[in-house]
Amino acid sequence: MDPELHKSLIELGMIRQVAIAEDRVEITLALTTLGCPLRGQIADDVKRTVGALEGVGSVEVSLSEMSEEEKRHIGIGVPETGAAEHLNVIHHVIAVMSGKGGVGKSLVSGLLALALRRQGYQVGILDADITGPSIPKMFFPDGAQLGYSPMGPMPPQSREGIRIMSINLLLEQEDQAVIWRGPLVSGAIKQFWGDIYWGTLDYLVVDLPPGTSDASLTVMQSLPISGILLVSSPQDLAGMVVRKAANMARQMGTPILGLVENMSYFECPDTGKRYDLFGPSHAEETARRIGVPFLGRLPIDPEIARLCDTGRIEEYVASAFAPVAEGLVARLPEPGRRAAG
Amino acid sequence: MDPELHKSLIELGMIRQVAIAEDRVEITLALTTLGCPLRGQIADDVKRTVGALEGVGSVEVSLSEMSEEEKRHIGIGVPETGAAEHLNVIHHVIAVMSGKGGVGKSLVSGLLALALRRQGYQVGILDADITGPSIPKMFFPDGAQLGYSPMGPMPPQSREGIRIMSINLLLEQEDQAVIWRGPLVSGAIKQFWGDIYWGTLDYLVVDLPPGTSDASLTVMQSLPISGILLVSSPQDLAGMVVRKAANMARQMGTPILGLVENMSYFECPDTGKRYDLFGPSHAEETARRIGVPFLGRLPIDPEIARLCDTGRIEEYVASAFAPVAEGLVARLPEPGRRAAG
Repeated sequence: MDPELHKSLIELGMIRQVAIAEDRVEITLALTTLGCPLRGQIADDVKRTVGALEGVGSVEVSLSEMSEEEKRHIGIGVPETGAAEHLNVIHHVIAVMSGKGGVGKSLVSGLLALALRRQGYQVGILDADITGPSIPKMFFPDGAQLGYSPMGPMPPQSREGIRIMSINLLLEQEDQAVIWRGPLVSGAIKQFWGDIYWGTLDYLVVDLPPGTSDASLTVMQSLPISGILLVSSPQDLAGMVVRKAANMARQMGTPILGLVENMSYFECPDTGKRYDLFGPSHAEETARRIGVPFLGRLPIDPEIARLCDTGRIEEYVASAFAPVAEGLVARLPEPGRRAAG
Repeated sequence: MDPELHKSLIELGMIRQVAIAEDRVEITLALTTLGCPLRGQIADDVKRTVGALEGVGSVEVSLSEMSEEEKRHIGIGVPETGAAEHLNVIHHVIAVMSGKGGVGKSLVSGLLALALRRQGYQVGILDADITGPSIPKMFFPDGAQLGYSPMGPMPPQSREGIRIMSINLLLEQEDQAVIWRGPLVSGAIKQFWGDIYWGTLDYLVVDLPPGTSDASLTVMQSLPISGILLVSSPQDLAGMVVRKAANMARQMGTPILGLVENMSYFECPDTGKRYDLFGPSHAEETARRIGVPFLGRLPIDPEIARLCDTGRIEEYVASAFAPVAEGLVARLPEPGRRAAG
C-alpha cells in the first residue's frame, strides 16, 4: 500500500521486477520520484510483507523511477521534468574536471565553492559523481537531507550556506552501490540540474567524475558551462589523462579556465623539507601543452584529509588555495550582482 | 580511397558524420576495425583531401567502427566478434577494483601481474579503463603496438613477458580523448576479451576504472571473474566508496579476494619517521565491515611514481607488495598447470 497515494503498489504498477534465487527475493520498485520522502517506509513495508511469506529467506529492494507517462497514467500531478529549471537563476557554472580519479577534484570543488562563498557569493555544488560521490561527506558531519518546496526538492545548505546536491542525499546508506549504466547516470545529472530548486546562484560548481564518458559528456552537452577548471597531480601519468580531458573540452567547445595541481609536495612538519611524493611536478608543462593558465599548486596536507573525513572542510584555512581561487575568479565574468548573503 | 579494400570511403559507407563550424570540419569515419593498422594512413588521407578544399581551415577526424552487418554488407571477410575467445585459454581472471579513482588500482594491477609473472605464471593485463588508461605508460618506456596473427590482434609483451591490452595501444596519440558513452566503452572491453588473441594465460588481471557503472558492470557480467581485489586509500571517504564497490560485487555475486590499502603512509627518508598523509588508516576497519581479508598496506614511495612515469615499473623491487601478492595467490585456486615461461 502506498502510504501517500493509498493504493496498492501492484495497482499503481510500481512492482517492476521480482527475481528469486533459492530463498533470496529481489524486488525492484518504480517510485513516482527517487526523491520520495517515504521511500524508506515503502521499501520497509515491502520487505516485511514479502519476508513474512513462507520459504522466503531474505528480501532485497531496489528503487527506480517511473517515466513521466507512467506517472500521468496513474493520475498523479507530477510536474514535468525540469520544472524547477525555469525558476532557477544560475549565473555561472564551473565544472571541475581531471579525467583521472583521485587527484582531488572533490577537494578542489569544495575549496573553490568555499572561497567564492567567503567573497559573499551565493554558491552551490552539484556532485556529478553518481557512482563515487564525495561532496556530502566533506560538508555535512551529521549527514543531510533534501528539503521540499512547491518549486521542487531543495538542496541542503552547509554551515556556511553552500547549497549541495549529491546522489548520496538520496541513498538510505552512504555506502549503497549505485550500479547504473550511462543513461541512468546522465538522467540523474540532468535531474540535479533541472528538477532541483537551486534558487538564485552566482556560481554553481559541478564536481565531475573521472573519465570522458557519460557523466562528462552530459554535463558538457546539457549544462551551460562557463568554463572548466582542470585538476592534475604531479604524476606524468595524470598529466596524460588530464590532457585527454582537455582535448575533450576542446572538442566540445567548452572553455578551460586553467589548471590546478593537487598533491604537489609534502612539507615535513618536523624538518620543513619538501618532498615530491609523486615525482617531480609536470603541471606547468602540462598547462603549457594544453595552452591554459597554470593557477597554482596545493600541497598534501594531513590536516585537510582529517577535516574532509569528518565533514569539517569549512574549518580549513586554505591559505594555499586563496591565490588559486582568486586567479580563477579573475578569469570569470562577474555575476550580474553580488548576492546579499 | 581505402588502401586495403581499394574502394572509395564513400562507396564503402565509411563516412559517418561531417560537422562544419565556420572553417573547422569534423569527420567521423567508421572503419572495419578500430585495430586497423592502416587507420593512421586513412585518417591522414581524409585530412589532406578535405583540408585542400577551399574555405576549410582545420580538419579533425574521429574513428569509429562498423557493425558486423555493415561489414558483411561491404563483403569483407571479417570474423565474427569474439572469434579469438574460443582460442584463448585463460585460467583465472582477477579484477582490481576500488570504486574511487586515484587510489592506485593500476599500480596494484601492475605489481600483482609482476608478482605472478615472477612466480613463473603466464600473465596478462586487460586495461578496462577506456577513458583513463594508465597501464601501457607503466610498462612500455618506448610505447608499444598490437601484433597481428591469423587468430586475431595480439597484445604486446612487456620486458618480462606480461601481455598487455589497452585502448591507448589503439590511439594515434596517448592524450587523445576517448569520448564514448557507456555502450561503446562496454563494447571495447568485450572486444579486448573476445577479439584479442591472448593465447594461454594462468592469470588475466583486469584493471577496472573507478565507479560502479558501465565498465565495472560489463566486466562482472561478461567476463568469468575468479575474484575481485579491492584497493582503498586511508581516507574514510575512500573507505565509503570502496564499500560501494564491495556492495556491487556482492549484488553481482562476484567473490572478493581481499582488500589492499595503498598510499598508507610516507616514511621520511631523512628521519625514518612515518607520516599518515591522508589521515589515519581505516583499511582494517573497512575490510572487517565488508567481511573480506585485509591483505596489507603499501606506502607512498616517490621511487615508484618515478618508475611508473617512465615505463619502468618492472625495475621496482616491490618488497612491500610481496606479502600482499602471496596472500592473494594463496586465496586463488592454483591454475591447472604452471606455464613453461
